[in-house]
Amino acid sequence: MGKVFLDISTSLDGYVAGPNPTLEEPLGEGGEQLHEWLVETAAWREAHGRSGGAQGADSEAFERMLAAKGASVMGRRMFSGGEGPWENDPKAGGWWGDDPPFRQPVFVVTHHAREPLVLGETTYTFVTTGVESAVEQARAAAGGLDVAIIGGADVFQQTLSAGLLDELNIHVSPVLLGAGTRLFAEGAGAGVSLELDGAIDSPAATHLRYRVVR
Amino acid sequence: MGKVFLDISTSLDGYVAGPNPTLEEPLGEGGEQLHEWLVETAAWREAHGRSGGAQGADSEAFERMLAAKGASVMGRRMFSGGEGPWENDPKAGGWWGDDPPFRQPVFVVTHHAREPLVLGETTYTFVTTGVESAVEQARAAAGGLDVAIIGGADVFQQTLSAGLLDELNIHVSPVLLGAGTRLFAEGAGAGVSLELDGAIDSPAATHLRYRVVR
Repeated sequence: MGKVFLDISTSLDGYVAGPNPTLEEPLGEGGEQLHEWLVETAAWREAHGRSGGAQGADSEAFERMLAAKGASVMGRRMFSGGEGPWENDPKAGGWWGDDPPFRQPVFVVTHHAREPLVLGETTYTFVTTGVESAVEQARAAAGGLDVAIIGGADVFQQTLSAGLLDELNIHVSPVLLGAGTRLFAEGAGAGVSLELDGAIDSPAATHLRYRVVR
Repeated sequence: MGKVFLDISTSLDGYVAGPNPTLEEPLGEGGEQLHEWLVETAAWREAHGRSGGAQGADSEAFERMLAAKGASVMGRRMFSGGEGPWENDPKAGGWWGDDPPFRQPVFVVTHHAREPLVLGETTYTFVTTGVESAVEQARAAAGGLDVAIIGGADVFQQTLSAGLLDELNIHVSPVLLGAGTRLFAEGAGAGVSLELDGAIDSPAATHLRYRVVR
């Protein structure tokens, strides 16, 4: 059976989004900087149907994640925001549009029941029974590959507390946001043991990989 | 003129000390784990008059810091704790004892005026006029070498806000404390631009080095 891993980008001061997210700036003020390491890579461009882009440590970090995962789990805000104009449109794919880059099953943890949604090669399943159930469904859908927890911080913290995570992949961007949503809220992760599995860096980010020790 | 750099160990969740520090556990619950990468290194042991210890990335990270600095700045709690039994003893060297490992000038930022204190090869100067003054005095005492800001989080945040820092050396230990003192309190460092200068890792820690961009 595959692993369950976190894959997320943070600022050096530990934020996964800046303050005051809006429809125009879903990652909050300054939050786009967290993914600057990613969006110019060859691997990201290819996943979004574009050519070109940079090879190197950053592209490899993203490729490694893509090759490992067979399904993803995300929170509702990462899918559509709390106030998205898609709330009442059963056909709308939220932030990720009509041709989402996932091209795999995605399980969205939410309190709002909704029919599954197929957009391009991506299938969204909306799970109202909590993260454990979402991870279980993702495992079944991953075909023996890994399950990626891709955000936000809430869903990560719930999977960590529930002992569902095998690995943390954290991409630390060399920026300070000063405020916003912390990857580790107060109390999250206390008592969890980790082993550093390796770190690779580029000028754009440091890619940290930890194993959770049981 | 030398640089001013931060040198500090944090948990992966960004704490420089755990919760509930006491006289027996000055770094709070679990806080000792933050320095496990350090205390077994050859360089640390040598600085503390002991032989043996491990070579490698961790020892080199500490050696690099020792070679660069000519003086240090620390906060009062890092010197003696808020409740230390040394508060009323003008000859006492706080946590660091009678033969402190610094063997250089150390400037302690405090609200409590106190005569300078010489213990072994270390001279403590107590600065009641704020971090800028402490850094200025440390620069003058460093003989052209660098000034190390060695903690705690308060003194770091003040030097960062005041634009006094040239470099951040952050040693990330593979532990989660869940609570305690954050290196980056809410609001600290917003608007500061960084460049990643390099990362080296061992199983015990990831050593991140950033330049502050002016």
